[in-house]
Amino acid sequence: MKYILVSHGDLAKSMLGSAQMIVGEQEGAVAFGLYPQDDIESLKNQIREAIEKFGGGEDIICFTDLFSGSPFNSVVAMMGDFPIRHITGMNLPLILEAFMMRMNEENSAVDISEKLLEQAPHTFIDVNDYLMNSLEEE
Amino acid sequence: MKYILVSHGDLAKSMLGSAQMIVGEQEGAVAFGLYPQDDIESLKNQIREAIEKFGGGEDIICFTDLFSGSPFNSVVAMMGDFPIRHITGMNLPLILEAFMMRMNEENSAVDISEKLLEQAPHTFIDVNDYLMNSLEEE
Repeated sequence: MKYILVSHGDLAKSMLGSAQMIVGEQEGAVAFGLYPQDDIESLKNQIREAIEKFGGGEDIICFTDLFSGSPFNSVVAMMGDFPIRHITGMNLPLILEAFMMRMNEENSAVDISEKLLEQAPHTFIDVNDYLMNSLEEE
Repeated sequence: MKYILVSHGDLAKSMLGSAQMIVGEQEGAVAFGLYPQDDIESLKNQIREAIEKFGGGEDIICFTDLFSGSPFNSVVAMMGDFPIRHITGMNLPLILEAFMMRMNEENSAVDISEKLLEQAPHTFIDVNDYLMNSLEEE
């Protein structure tokens, strides 16, 4: 399983870097950013090259920063040419979970995508409410 | 309304930077990272100073990268001393929404937190499923 993270600015690179601080260095994972001076074609070319380098197959998941916008659209543009999966709205808990899940080689990109989407709503927590509820339960 | 983003590594700083690429430069928003060589007390001191500089009041929301871990715990440690709000699992769509929402000065930190938590599950999208459903509806 291979992962490609794409964002405005440094977000994707930093998310990959922060994830690796926690789970250790990862092979088969790259990140690209779109900067104000860049043109979108150059970003698309970087993504295309990474997909091709990773074999261009069904074992590639692209993660983007948010729905719509150029990083998102650049990955959508690749979905016509390659059988990749694409999840948008990435956060650190989901990227970590994605790295955990690929350790089991039986998990397909579809399996991982489904599990991540199922878990996603639980990765956002209002900590004030959480602590209040924990106190009430004691 | 003031925002403090805290994460492992550069993630928080890059998320703030990428958000500003989209919504423009923002006052009253800072980001801190915990790096492998850092001790947690130093991170806590940075957060404490930022909270104090922002007035130490109820109009401060801290965003952290993920539930548990040192960045999260550093903010939790501040929650005993200051009436701040704390949301964990941040992603770019939520940070952008937080910047939008504070443009209406009537929105309190509680209002913003509630709205963000309500929206959060909708910011993660499986784009393959989304496009498939869009095609079926046509």
